Amino acid sequence: MTVEPSLTVTVEWGDCDPAGIVFYPNYLRWIDAAFHHLLAATGTSHEQLAAAHGAIGTPLVEVRVRFLRPSGVGDTLRIESVVERWERKRFHVRHRIYNGETLAVEATETRCWAGRDADGRMRALPIPEELRHLLDAQ
Amino acid sequence: MTVEPSLTVTVEWGDCDPAGIVFYPNYLRWIDAAFHHLLAATGTSHEQLAAAHGAIGTPLVEVRVRFLRPSGVGDTLRIESVVERWERKRFHVRHRIYNGETLAVEATETRCWAGRDADGRMRALPIPEELRHLLDAQ
Amino acid sequence: MTVEPSLTVTVEWGDCDPAGIVFYPNYLRWIDAAFHHLLAATGTSHEQLAAAHGAIGTPLVEVRVRFLRPSGVGDTLRIESVVERWERKRFHVRHRIYNGETLAVEATETRCWAGRDADGRMRALPIPEELRHLLDAQ
Amino acid sequence: MTVEPSLTVTVEWGDCDPAGIVFYPNYLRWIDAAFHHLLAATGTSHEQLAAAHGAIGTPLVEVRVRFLRPSGVGDTLRIESVVERWERKRFHVRHRIYNGETLAVEATETRCWAGRDADGRMRALPIPEELRHLLDAQ
Repeated sequence: MTVEPSLTVTVEWGDCDPAGIVFYPNYLRWIDAAFHHLLAATGTSHEQLAAAHGAIGTPLVEVRVRFLRPSGVGDTLRIESVVERWERKRFHVRHRIYNGETLAVEATETRCWAGRDADGRMRALPIPEELRHLLDAQ
Repeated sequence: MTVEPSLTVTVEWGDCDPAGIVFYPNYLRWIDAAFHHLLAATGTSHEQLAAAHGAIGTPLVEVRVRFLRPSGVGDTLRIESVVERWERKRFHVRHRIYNGETLAVEATETRCWAGRDADGRMRALPIPEELRHLLDAQ
Repeated sequence: MTVEPSLTVTVEWGDCDPAGIVFYPNYLRWIDAAFHHLLAATGTSHEQLAAAHGAIGTPLVEVRVRFLRPSGVGDTLRIESVVERWERKRFHVRHRIYNGETLAVEATETRCWAGRDADGRMRALPIPEELRHLLDAQ
Repeated sequence: MTVEPSLTVTVEWGDCDPAGIVFYPNYLRWIDAAFHHLLAATGTSHEQLAAAHGAIGTPLVEVRVRFLRPSGVGDTLRIESVVERWERKRFHVRHRIYNGETLAVEATETRCWAGRDADGRMRALPIPEELRHLLDAQ
């Protein structure tokens, strides 16, 4: 399977810290956006799915990131994202960020499908089949 | 009238750019927070007021910022905020950011009171008396 | 003169606030990036120019922004930037952000050309001819 | 050992997403700041140490975050940080973020001590004894 980049970003001046390299929380911002683009590429959106199912969306349960190579102002980053594994209420999205040919950052997001219970507290719900089918077809 | 700081912030490593000074959009983030703290100090909140009046809140109409002195990692900034002028659907909030004794940034936010019309489009509404009384008493 | 967009951005989930519209400091982040892209389009970069002239770069002196129409998740914004006026130590960059055909945000950045004096304090310096020629040719 | 919070933050309106909860990359921003505050509490700073040792600083090698409970606008978060383990060129910082009495987020940062080699490329160096002694005394 060829992986199309979910997102391509240019590293801006304001994304970098006084050491001149990307301030690391920005990678998480791009990774979150890459997941939303992966979803948007199915023809739906986070908001539409949530509305259709009376849910909140897909909040993070866990994220693990390895930083392999720093990037700096003007670099172009290509993020390849794919759902790697499904559980009943959770799924795992693997993101690889390339700077040119070099793998610069590798991340796994664990997300759940969340709604609100009667008390307004957020809790994980079984993942709708629709979400799984859409993302597996990517 | 003595102005109490609405917000005190420490400049963090990640707030600064490769030149080692605050990346300027961060000042706007702090200025927005200072306005919310000004409101919170009245004993209500942006969310409560919006909910009570079926409104969205107080989106920006205009902002003007003068940057007088750069700040860097570890500096403590004190933001003093006050509503300077009321119009029927708009109000003007003046923010002064001090780094020690030095005035570092000066800003004026023009905000409106906004709701959604029948088509779901955002539009300005007359400012509730409650908002004005609360903020003028600050 | 036709104005090419300096930058095109997609509004991401994380760029929006609980009201579902762009959190306004993000516009400033994009406007700053648009200026750097305008500079990059000349074939040089902020960093190269600063290094060549022993300077720090082009910190903001003032910014004025008018927010005309809110934007939300998934919207595509097109930023058109142009240097509007030169002074000896300052220059004014006008940015127009379009959401589709609609002018959504209008901003003017006033920037200076800055170096450090003997005491390490930042101060404005005469703008190098090179910077002016490069940007006027855009 | 009692753990003093390294950092206390208020969740601001602009830190939250359209679902009304903290946009997760902001937690990483606060975690990074908490590490810098942990260092600052020793009486030195990231910048001073880096300058004294001709190094760049302590870039992230890996970060793992578990999100246990969402937080929203106006919540106060208390971050407790401690160096959990030292290796020759790396160290592991454990961060616990509490919202009131509830553990809301748990993270482990793996950082290295980095300098630049002759080609200007960033690489890990043996951790200075000074850094270890300072942080272990916290």
